[in-house]
Amino acid sequence: MKMDPRCTYCLLSRVHYEAQLSTDDEDLIYRTMQAGLDVLKETYKPGVAAGVVSTAIHRKAYEMLDDEDPYVELRKLSNRIAEKVYPYAHSLVYEGSPSDEEMFRRAVLASVIGNFFDFGIMGFDVGEDVFDRTFAEIFRKGLDVDDTSEMFGMLDDVVYVVDNCGEIILDTLVFDIIRKVGGKITLVVRGAPMLTDVTMENVHELELDKKVDRVLTTGSNAVGVCFDEAPAEFIEALENASLIISKGMANYETMSEENFGSIAYLLRTKCEAVAEDMGLEMGCSVAKLVR
Amino acid sequence: MKMDPRCTYCLLSRVHYEAQLSTDDEDLIYRTMQAGLDVLKETYKPGVAAGVVSTAIHRKAYEMLDDEDPYVELRKLSNRIAEKVYPYAHSLVYEGSPSDEEMFRRAVLASVIGNFFDFGIMGFDVGEDVFDRTFAEIFRKGLDVDDTSEMFGMLDDVVYVVDNCGEIILDTLVFDIIRKVGGKITLVVRGAPMLTDVTMENVHELELDKKVDRVLTTGSNAVGVCFDEAPAEFIEALENASLIISKGMANYETMSEENFGSIAYLLRTKCEAVAEDMGLEMGCSVAKLVR
Repeated sequence: MKMDPRCTYCLLSRVHYEAQLSTDDEDLIYRTMQAGLDVLKETYKPGVAAGVVSTAIHRKAYEMLDDEDPYVELRKLSNRIAEKVYPYAHSLVYEGSPSDEEMFRRAVLASVIGNFFDFGIMGFDVGEDVFDRTFAEIFRKGLDVDDTSEMFGMLDDVVYVVDNCGEIILDTLVFDIIRKVGGKITLVVRGAPMLTDVTMENVHELELDKKVDRVLTTGSNAVGVCFDEAPAEFIEALENASLIISKGMANYETMSEENFGSIAYLLRTKCEAVAEDMGLEMGCSVAKLVR
Repeated sequence: MKMDPRCTYCLLSRVHYEAQLSTDDEDLIYRTMQAGLDVLKETYKPGVAAGVVSTAIHRKAYEMLDDEDPYVELRKLSNRIAEKVYPYAHSLVYEGSPSDEEMFRRAVLASVIGNFFDFGIMGFDVGEDVFDRTFAEIFRKGLDVDDTSEMFGMLDDVVYVVDNCGEIILDTLVFDIIRKVGGKITLVVRGAPMLTDVTMENVHELELDKKVDRVLTTGSNAVGVCFDEAPAEFIEALENASLIISKGMANYETMSEENFGSIAYLLRTKCEAVAEDMGLEMGCSVAKLVR
């Protein structure tokens, strides 16, 4: 996906957000914002891929803040909140002993709702019961783009490129169904901390390696995937997958610039630029297969 | 008021908004955004007044777009919509024959709600009845900061620095009460088009000169007031006023940097930076007197 003019101010607002997570020093925040402006001036060109600019601006912000992971606390919080909603989400997926395909559809939906919630931002200040109720409401609405039936026949060797902490716990519902029907899963996480994205450290904490067949990384702390920095093993896995599952908007922004095989994009359209690029409205729950 | 880091991305989003109002040419929009980044790089310094940056960035955008008034249509639309709500607002102010002071309070409230609505953005796609109902709901909530009683004793010689089209029509409810109790009004509008702010052209169209004792301008197309460009007559009026009424956030941002006499700020706190600067929450209806 190409950079949209709207990405300029959205990225600056994210830089400000992470600067505030990292420090109270107003002068440092000011210098971080100025550095963000510099990055935009340098990298925002007509036709540039959105991921190039977003990765550059966040890396610069982390460098200015001298902080490897401004989101470290938010990342933990996201997981704690998602763990609370997990039992309820699990019950919704298995309720009434549905077919494997229906279970898969429901698990995908739960995982897409995980992407919607951005755990730790919303959901923190509401009680568990309210949270479960909200989850149930969105669950009932279902998927706005539902290619899960097609996806269901392609689960032999899945490469699953994950997104944020928090939602990763709901992604495991999808892992369970893939394995139940005999498929293999290669889980791909970030090579180093970027925003609230899942890293190898989170894999160990949450024992995600027990839920999948192998775990790889994208090789770096890019927003989405920076293919110039991607390990050969990861590229090979993408090339040989029966289905690539790409979770969230940042992975969409970067994966959609490449030409691998069949990719299913699971996400909520949380920004206008991504929604337009996909030909969808804002606020859609999406499981879109692109062959 | 000083520039806040949040103003950077808010201003860029406004530049994008007005670029889209003015043109469909994606390359021109791109160059306008880049010019906006240049202005931020140059003018955003620690402690700079917010108005300095916002005026510079909008003027640069207008120059890049070669457009003296990207908001020309929105300005007309705002007035048309406000004219529709005016009779209902009028009836709320005079309902039950209240005292002059109570009428003044209600008129101020109606005028503050006008600032909230940003006519032409909201309100366009709803029916008139819905619009009246929404207006009534906010009216019932009343003012969150209400210094109208103090203001009421200071209406001899009012300088009224207005803000947007649309809301100006509700401001006339305040003019009527000031004149009813024997006060004089000097109306101050922008010297040239800036955003949807009222200009001398709008004064003539709406025959506002019949509602007040004289009309002056700020002397230029600044966001709020640029005092370096303000005519002597306007400065003199401010210095001699029994009460200055400053409408909206942009006037607050610039007037609060100066030291004139008693100023009443009438506005809705529509952005966090202004709300914090005033020591208030977002979304407040404010009539705050500063002596």
